Amino acid sequence: MTKTDIATRVHNHTWKLDPIVRSLIDTDFYKLLMLQMIWKLYPEVDATFSLINRTKTVRLAEEIDEMELREQLDHARTLRLSKKENIWLAGNTFYGRSQIFEPEFLSWLSSYQLPEYELFKRDGQYELNFHGRWMDTTLWEIPALSIINELRSRSAMRSLGYFTLDVLYARAKAKMWEKVERLRELPGLRISDFGTRRRHSFLWQRWCVEALKEGIGPAFTGTSNVLLAMDSDLEAVGTNAHELPMVVAALAQTNEELAAAPYQVLKDWNRLYGGNLLIVLPDAFGTAAFLRNAPEWVADWTGFRPDSAPPIEGGEKIIEWWRKMGRDPRTKMLIFSDGLDVDAIVDTYRHFEGRVRMSFGWGTNLTNDFAGCAPKTIASLKPISIVCKVSDANGRPAVKLSDNPQKATGDPAEVERYLKFFGEEDHKEQKVLV
Amino acid sequence: MTKTDIATRVHNHTWKLDPIVRSLIDTDFYKLLMLQMIWKLYPEVDATFSLINRTKTVRLAEEIDEMELREQLDHARTLRLSKKENIWLAGNTFYGRSQIFEPEFLSWLSSYQLPEYELFKRDGQYELNFHGRWMDTTLWEIPALSIINELRSRSAMRSLGYFTLDVLYARAKAKMWEKVERLRELPGLRISDFGTRRRHSFLWQRWCVEALKEGIGPAFTGTSNVLLAMDSDLEAVGTNAHELPMVVAALAQTNEELAAAPYQVLKDWNRLYGGNLLIVLPDAFGTAAFLRNAPEWVADWTGFRPDSAPPIEGGEKIIEWWRKMGRDPRTKMLIFSDGLDVDAIVDTYRHFEGRVRMSFGWGTNLTNDFAGCAPKTIASLKPISIVCKVSDANGRPAVKLSDNPQKATGDPAEVERYLKFFGEEDHKEQKVLV
Repeated sequence: MTKTDIATRVHNHTWKLDPIVRSLIDTDFYKLLMLQMIWKLYPEVDATFSLINRTKTVRLAEEIDEMELREQLDHARTLRLSKKENIWLAGNTFYGRSQIFEPEFLSWLSSYQLPEYELFKRDGQYELNFHGRWMDTTLWEIPALSIINELRSRSAMRSLGYFTLDVLYARAKAKMWEKVERLRELPGLRISDFGTRRRHSFLWQRWCVEALKEGIGPAFTGTSNVLLAMDSDLEAVGTNAHELPMVVAALAQTNEELAAAPYQVLKDWNRLYGGNLLIVLPDAFGTAAFLRNAPEWVADWTGFRPDSAPPIEGGEKIIEWWRKMGRDPRTKMLIFSDGLDVDAIVDTYRHFEGRVRMSFGWGTNLTNDFAGCAPKTIASLKPISIVCKVSDANGRPAVKLSDNPQKATGDPAEVERYLKFFGEEDHKEQKVLV
Repeated sequence: MTKTDIATRVHNHTWKLDPIVRSLIDTDFYKLLMLQMIWKLYPEVDATFSLINRTKTVRLAEEIDEMELREQLDHARTLRLSKKENIWLAGNTFYGRSQIFEPEFLSWLSSYQLPEYELFKRDGQYELNFHGRWMDTTLWEIPALSIINELRSRSAMRSLGYFTLDVLYARAKAKMWEKVERLRELPGLRISDFGTRRRHSFLWQRWCVEALKEGIGPAFTGTSNVLLAMDSDLEAVGTNAHELPMVVAALAQTNEELAAAPYQVLKDWNRLYGGNLLIVLPDAFGTAAFLRNAPEWVADWTGFRPDSAPPIEGGEKIIEWWRKMGRDPRTKMLIFSDGLDVDAIVDTYRHFEGRVRMSFGWGTNLTNDFAGCAPKTIASLKPISIVCKVSDANGRPAVKLSDNPQKATGDPAEVERYLKFFGEEDHKEQKVLV
């Protein structure tokens, strides 16, 4: 006899909402590190975050229902840090350091709520903006993205029958396991999950994280997702992001302040964090300009995360700079995190093996790779290149140049001004896939 | 909050037995057709069925626990035809014919019970015999095999963790779907499931059957499994097996009766069944001998099932014989069912396309193909070549020669006598994989 659990069945057919984000710490760890710094050093600064879909061919407003999007965003606004989460953040050791979060910060965070959002449609896309204090708006980045991406997956799969879904996930699991088996061949690999923002879904990210934990063991060094780190006893990983230099540069009143901005945030960072958290993200306004003007002490930091240059080329430039500064690259760390697939990981690993310490942050291609998995091709299962970036600070436009003009964001006139100011050397067009 | 259904949990941890065979009709359809003929024409004949593991390197008695085997066999003996099953057998149309089973037969079947078994270990193998009336023992063939094969899978997977099992089945599903996609390329394909006896498990067979139903639609012409046919509204398929000529030959008192045995069973069959059920299984004592001595009327039957010759070679010989007998092969049917994998199906289909009607009965490679699916290689997930054959009838040894000496069964001296009697032309050693 087939047994159907009646309560489960009724519940499944009467629920109002299947929330995508169910915890405030279902976010990237670096957001919390940055938030503490913003809360401490820039509590009065306003910053607007805005959704940017770089994949213009995908008309998000036609794929995702606006009411569903509003319900998910509204639900995220009801979330508060739970007692368990607060205790864990206070008591856990991150990057070998206990009490990385100050009691006052956690006390403030325990009553934190995601602020209001502004949502409208334009030209088949969603305009989604978060206005307010930087320390309030910054946390929207990750839930906004994971909500958009998961709603898109759900919409793509809505018409699929049970059997097709079964084959879809079976193939995705088989595909993921092939990757695990290839990664196993790299003896000293260190890789972590950076896939929260672009994930197919929360449950699928969790499966991928479990697969890495089971499949590559100690080579899997953690997840950027704080909730998964807590639930699965993994290291929470991540350091800092472009929003720090972007906001500080936007606030600059003089050319001197603008020139100093990328190094000012490193000084700020150093006041709060140390050791393995001292990772430079050099490409906000171009890596070449950053290295050319960098003060001596930048070479003392633990490592660099080249995020928009091709990994081998970008890594070589940084190694060359360490050498020029008289540092031994073998004691330094490079963190690769830009649109990695297994081939890029293997190639990059083989290229730098023995010459520098390496770590890989694996994102979209880990948690949202369903190419070839559906019995029929479903275009909207293909991930898009979507980000949520700070767009202004205290009313002044915020800009990112990066090493790849395709990834530049911000007001075009201001981008132009920054390009003239920082120079365009080594900027290189590369197709942005994810 | 994670919700655990307490009743389910307690049930899962306290059940005594997870029965492998849960219905008397979880068997091959041809067993019921043959059973009705045996019940009608040979009710007084005794026949012993015996398990034969041709894969001697696998020591079954070391892989399968004897107590578990006894529990499963004992459980199968508690089964009776249910009312629903009886009504369905009486009311359903098989091969386009209603009431294929006589009411008296179904009445007898409704109180049928699998007879006792004899089980002991010898040289690392199980000796498993079923003694008694042919009409009682014959139905043991399929449940005995599916019990042995599923117990072997269970034992192979006992040490695997949840995650490994998840990857195992995900890969098996992905692999199965690759096969479906290849079969889709054959426009007029007709294929059915013959995989009950060698299945990995009942649930896996059911998944494979659903996959074919969903994936190749009308090209999937049914399943030999009566229970799955009933539950999934599929055609039940299958006609007759070697046990008929084997028993009739064993009963022969004279050389004339022995020579006539293969044709006697066809005459018997024709008394009960017609149309598409008139499929000749020619290889019990060698196809060449069968064709050489076949009466004219055999060429009027709908088709042949060459079961132990290589499919293309065996098919060509039968087509040649039909031509010699003045019949048009394009009106005839060849059913291929011997150890088929997708390559063999595609090759055979392409070879005979347009020259003869074809149908494929897909067995072990459909329902028990886990090669490369486990994260680590598990030797005991590889299917073995195991059969349950009639070994004597009324105390006289029963023999099968087949076209492949590797598949011959029976007392060696008697095999020798049959070989001399029927001749050895076209007998060809082929490796038996499954």
